Amino acid sequence: MSRTQDAPWNEPLEAVLREWAQTAAARDKTGGTAFHERHLLRESGLLRLSVPVEHGGDGAPWSVTLDVVRRMARVDSSLAHLFAFHHLQLATIRLFGSDAQNRAWLGETVTQGWFWGNALNPLDKSTRALPDGAGGYVFDGRKSFCSGARDSDRLLASAFDGDGRLLIGVTPTNRAGIAVLDDWDNMGQRQTDSGTVVFERVPIARDELLLQPGPLSSPFATLRPLLAQSILSHIYLGIGEGALQAAREATLAQTRPWIASQAERPADDPYVLANYGDFWIALEGARLLVERAMQAFDGAWLRGLALTENERGEVAVAVAASKVAAARAGLDVAHRMFEVTGARSTTAALRLDRFWRNVRVHTLHDPLDYKVRELGDWALNERIPKPSFYS
Amino acid sequence: MSRTQDAPWNEPLEAVLREWAQTAAARDKTGGTAFHERHLLRESGLLRLSVPVEHGGDGAPWSVTLDVVRRMARVDSSLAHLFAFHHLQLATIRLFGSDAQNRAWLGETVTQGWFWGNALNPLDKSTRALPDGAGGYVFDGRKSFCSGARDSDRLLASAFDGDGRLLIGVTPTNRAGIAVLDDWDNMGQRQTDSGTVVFERVPIARDELLLQPGPLSSPFATLRPLLAQSILSHIYLGIGEGALQAAREATLAQTRPWIASQAERPADDPYVLANYGDFWIALEGARLLVERAMQAFDGAWLRGLALTENERGEVAVAVAASKVAAARAGLDVAHRMFEVTGARSTTAALRLDRFWRNVRVHTLHDPLDYKVRELGDWALNERIPKPSFYS
Amino acid sequence: MSRTQDAPWNEPLEAVLREWAQTAAARDKTGGTAFHERHLLRESGLLRLSVPVEHGGDGAPWSVTLDVVRRMARVDSSLAHLFAFHHLQLATIRLFGSDAQNRAWLGETVTQGWFWGNALNPLDKSTRALPDGAGGYVFDGRKSFCSGARDSDRLLASAFDGDGRLLIGVTPTNRAGIAVLDDWDNMGQRQTDSGTVVFERVPIARDELLLQPGPLSSPFATLRPLLAQSILSHIYLGIGEGALQAAREATLAQTRPWIASQAERPADDPYVLANYGDFWIALEGARLLVERAMQAFDGAWLRGLALTENERGEVAVAVAASKVAAARAGLDVAHRMFEVTGARSTTAALRLDRFWRNVRVHTLHDPLDYKVRELGDWALNERIPKPSFYS
Amino acid sequence: MSRTQDAPWNEPLEAVLREWAQTAAARDKTGGTAFHERHLLRESGLLRLSVPVEHGGDGAPWSVTLDVVRRMARVDSSLAHLFAFHHLQLATIRLFGSDAQNRAWLGETVTQGWFWGNALNPLDKSTRALPDGAGGYVFDGRKSFCSGARDSDRLLASAFDGDGRLLIGVTPTNRAGIAVLDDWDNMGQRQTDSGTVVFERVPIARDELLLQPGPLSSPFATLRPLLAQSILSHIYLGIGEGALQAAREATLAQTRPWIASQAERPADDPYVLANYGDFWIALEGARLLVERAMQAFDGAWLRGLALTENERGEVAVAVAASKVAAARAGLDVAHRMFEVTGARSTTAALRLDRFWRNVRVHTLHDPLDYKVRELGDWALNERIPKPSFYS
Repeated sequence: MSRTQDAPWNEPLEAVLREWAQTAAARDKTGGTAFHERHLLRESGLLRLSVPVEHGGDGAPWSVTLDVVRRMARVDSSLAHLFAFHHLQLATIRLFGSDAQNRAWLGETVTQGWFWGNALNPLDKSTRALPDGAGGYVFDGRKSFCSGARDSDRLLASAFDGDGRLLIGVTPTNRAGIAVLDDWDNMGQRQTDSGTVVFERVPIARDELLLQPGPLSSPFATLRPLLAQSILSHIYLGIGEGALQAAREATLAQTRPWIASQAERPADDPYVLANYGDFWIALEGARLLVERAMQAFDGAWLRGLALTENERGEVAVAVAASKVAAARAGLDVAHRMFEVTGARSTTAALRLDRFWRNVRVHTLHDPLDYKVRELGDWALNERIPKPSFYS
Repeated sequence: MSRTQDAPWNEPLEAVLREWAQTAAARDKTGGTAFHERHLLRESGLLRLSVPVEHGGDGAPWSVTLDVVRRMARVDSSLAHLFAFHHLQLATIRLFGSDAQNRAWLGETVTQGWFWGNALNPLDKSTRALPDGAGGYVFDGRKSFCSGARDSDRLLASAFDGDGRLLIGVTPTNRAGIAVLDDWDNMGQRQTDSGTVVFERVPIARDELLLQPGPLSSPFATLRPLLAQSILSHIYLGIGEGALQAAREATLAQTRPWIASQAERPADDPYVLANYGDFWIALEGARLLVERAMQAFDGAWLRGLALTENERGEVAVAVAASKVAAARAGLDVAHRMFEVTGARSTTAALRLDRFWRNVRVHTLHDPLDYKVRELGDWALNERIPKPSFYS
Repeated sequence: MSRTQDAPWNEPLEAVLREWAQTAAARDKTGGTAFHERHLLRESGLLRLSVPVEHGGDGAPWSVTLDVVRRMARVDSSLAHLFAFHHLQLATIRLFGSDAQNRAWLGETVTQGWFWGNALNPLDKSTRALPDGAGGYVFDGRKSFCSGARDSDRLLASAFDGDGRLLIGVTPTNRAGIAVLDDWDNMGQRQTDSGTVVFERVPIARDELLLQPGPLSSPFATLRPLLAQSILSHIYLGIGEGALQAAREATLAQTRPWIASQAERPADDPYVLANYGDFWIALEGARLLVERAMQAFDGAWLRGLALTENERGEVAVAVAASKVAAARAGLDVAHRMFEVTGARSTTAALRLDRFWRNVRVHTLHDPLDYKVRELGDWALNERIPKPSFYS
Repeated sequence: MSRTQDAPWNEPLEAVLREWAQTAAARDKTGGTAFHERHLLRESGLLRLSVPVEHGGDGAPWSVTLDVVRRMARVDSSLAHLFAFHHLQLATIRLFGSDAQNRAWLGETVTQGWFWGNALNPLDKSTRALPDGAGGYVFDGRKSFCSGARDSDRLLASAFDGDGRLLIGVTPTNRAGIAVLDDWDNMGQRQTDSGTVVFERVPIARDELLLQPGPLSSPFATLRPLLAQSILSHIYLGIGEGALQAAREATLAQTRPWIASQAERPADDPYVLANYGDFWIALEGARLLVERAMQAFDGAWLRGLALTENERGEVAVAVAASKVAAARAGLDVAHRMFEVTGARSTTAALRLDRFWRNVRVHTLHDPLDYKVRELGDWALNERIPKPSFYS
């Protein structure tokens, strides 16, 4: 069914997914850093999936990279997030960085097998960048929600200078002054390591800063938030699909219909079928919206700096619609699946609640209500979303 | 935006739509047969749109014909229905009839400018077919819900023989014994003329019967109900799109926000925008599901008799999903649009309630709950819908 | 079931309801002024229901008067509205007027059989009040949405003076300079005569103005908008109850279940029952909220000028909750009832769509979204609604 | 606000609630048996709350006992369930047992401070009752979902004899042959100890069986399932109320509104307020339905054996409506609360997901869809629910 199933990296991917699946429920319980599963990912070669062929990567379009994210999310949405954010950091370099930076960092990602972590949080103003007098800066402060920073090789980090300008820099994770705390303990997305990174007077050299062309510097560069939003959509959708699959297994395993039901088996009960029908429609609509948005996104990416504001705006509308639909579908299936799996499916052994906890947490990334508002502004006033780190 | 906008028949179509639009609200009030608007349709050449090129038609694929239906439904869903059912009768001949019948009736549809009406209702067992001893039958009884029978040139009519077998025949509408009553007066879809046709001992000759291969005789022939269901989806979606457009005009025309609103204009009110955002997401999801279903349908049609049960089953699932989504989207927008258009928009002069009345009536064609059930049976049990006149 | 069924005026009420019911569908079609049905109301004695015993009335508490409104709304929500607004005008005199005014106007309402109409619209700033130099004013301008002004004996009218102060006066409807236009033609609530009243230099004497204590002059006086809101709740709920009853009749009259249903009769179909279950829960919840709000309202009314802001605030919260629940229940039942009554129930002869058109129009009185917001402000911030003409 | 706040046992109750609250989140993490909190309950005297005064108890009506359940559920729905099921066992003795049994067991509950556990599960046919030849039986088999069996003094246990007749008996929990397993580990309601009890040839004497009048032996005796259903409603509602309170604290603690919001503080954001408004309406409607159902239940209980089938049926309808409304409200608030509390509220430290996990698990007790169906059967066909262990 999926476009990604014929690719050369499909077999390694499936091997990884199989192994993740065996421990997903158990690791949801323990939380913490999934060292072994991250290791499998490094070994699989998938960390170079989005890297352009010229830099030694597979050159997969974003639609394909995110399709892999979605397949991962069906099995383990924490690891899907780490994989996706690794590639988001690489995209950030491609959108905000210079050719030389691309050559260096993308190339070494392939040759050294780097795993990238996130320390970029444009809402978190507590990290400051002080000029070092030589064109570089010293980053100082704490950042929260730094997904994938633990066990990473390189970090993309943000800070604000004295004028309130956002600076984004690249640094080895093990540079002196950087402490990656093991303090992520959350109700969902438990193995995303989205904890705190402390920067204590960490020097970031001039050529480690993404200044040419810099953040959100063109319609093309503002594709970055659209990629970030699309990653979310694929994770939400993948969780919904994983939840549906888990629900099916539970329903089909039941042998006794409810005493008031006239069906011979639970899987023929009219209300059970009505619920599954709803799940299907929600997921199917989200799937098409997500796929359409990625077609638009791939096209916009290929346009590069020629991309206009309006073209970018139309992609943004498609991405926003897919995000809201995927979030609602994922939330709905994960919330309601229990009505068709029955009381016994709530045993902690299955940890079926992880689908809900994961999608519930992840859909709080930025408020859905404001995404719906954006779509309303388009539908009514024909205003395209104003680019920001969330639109 | 739409694929149909570059075709040679696009200009005549737009001319028709413009003229319909001017009187749509007024004709919703009067009801009855839209002689003038049907005349415009005959003149436009659009009645031959789906007819294969070899029979003198435009040879448009079904996706294109139904896209025209959807564009019509934005403006006038009664006339969209008549146009669609005309083409559904032609499809029925193509699926259930012989080559000779196709040649004759499709050809004459083009040369004589026939407008086809519907007297086929497989649930209505009150019309009986009595053998005439010469291989033909005499049809006798009353049929209800005969959309487009009035002012038509040819009818497709059904009856049951003594063994309960469904027979479908073709007859000139003005054949002796046929009375097309002017008794359709309904809360919605008021100009579909879906009234009663009385057959009083009407002879239907052997070669007027669709016997080779006959009704639902192969997976290919069972595409007929899928086409009928797809017509419904396009009408629901078109109504939803028309309702959204009418709502926008009303909201944008308002100058004063609600007294408790902090917005400068109603179109910037957060709750107004939230509603429009919801409308957009619902319609956008339905649009993609409808378009995907038609791609599948076009492909299945081209397969002809080679089409397998399973292939047909997958199209049926796509069609069912699009039907439910389009119905829900159309109903939702038509129901809720008033919350953003305000009290003054309820004046009878605008007749904005016609969107709700039309989609409310039309979505009762067959119960949505059982369509959702079909999708649940697919999602859970991987059972494809069992072909019937409604699946 | 209802508290009002043992009262002496119950028999006349039931006689009125029976006669209204026979023509409700037909009169929904014609629209216009329901002279005969208004006449029945005058004859019934119910126009004095809320008038205190000391002024010759029945002295019914507001909970009882509004219960009558709800019973009327099940049958004919336009007439229920006219009846309710008559009593709202009387309440306005009691809350904003002097003892002498009460004695005169309430007394004459009983002795002369006056029917009051509404020309008070605090959002409509186009009617101006010019001082006449003798303490009175001259009202000049057009007012829209003047429910019940036609065929009325007295009007309550509002205008703004040069300082933007709202003035409310009482006048015979037939005073020179007043023209009550027959221009109400709406998609719903078709016999509420909510058209335009034109004031052309109409003198309103000083003692015809409600100045002592005047509009919204105390927590007690601000019960007026809460009574207006409660009237709405009772009409929404009554429409929902009427729609449920009409739906039941239609479902129970059906003999053939849907072909894919395994039930023996439509009324045993699992999806049909699910819909009715939803309707019941929605209406039952609204019923209790409405009844609880009226208990609170009756209590607050009895407190009179001793009523505090906070006490009034708690009533306002109860009224707001009941209003939203009743609106949602009424809208939901009227919208979805067709899914259980089937295609044949859409015939114009039944005009079952009137329930939807009536509740759809009437729920636009003031935006539900802002009423929900008020409740949110209470639930989260413990802020009571700020009194206005809509809260 | 609550009727229970003036009673003599209110102070001990509040002391218990305060102590529970301090550890509720932590104990949700550990799961297992809440020995200390159960001890507090024993000490509080609340275990005799529903016991009639003649047997030494407080003689609280069921409405009051369940109001206590609801107050407990706001803080800790596992312990609320244990408390409620203790009283349900006592009610079972009162409804199914003889006077002598009542005197003995209810009396000793008070004097000995017994805590009752549940081993009655009428759907679980795996426990068999073999006649011991002396009018008693030997119970043999495993029972699942035995809430509160651990750390209990007495058990109510069920088994089926050779003819399929349900037998219910009373036994000390520590009788030889009974093993109460510590095997409850579930995604929610984690401290209800709803694990397995194994009966290995456990003798139950004749006078330990509830045979006079026996299970569901009269309309009065069939109040037992209605009490069980009402317990569920109160727990769902309490969870919803607790979730709302926790959400409020989180929202009010936030200082920064979303970047796209024009509000000064999150608690003034229009979408945040809209969500709280919805929560309020849902909970308020459920509250009234629950209170009304308990009034009806108290009345029916007082009628005793004079209670008719129809009277019982009307209580059953009220209970069913309250159950569905409370379940929906609890689920909705617990699911959506995160949209107003923001991403940081998902930290495992707060364990705010416990509200969802608890209500999600508990609402699976018996399928809501079939409860809605019962209400539909009443609304449409005027059929009262047929008494069973779930209706």
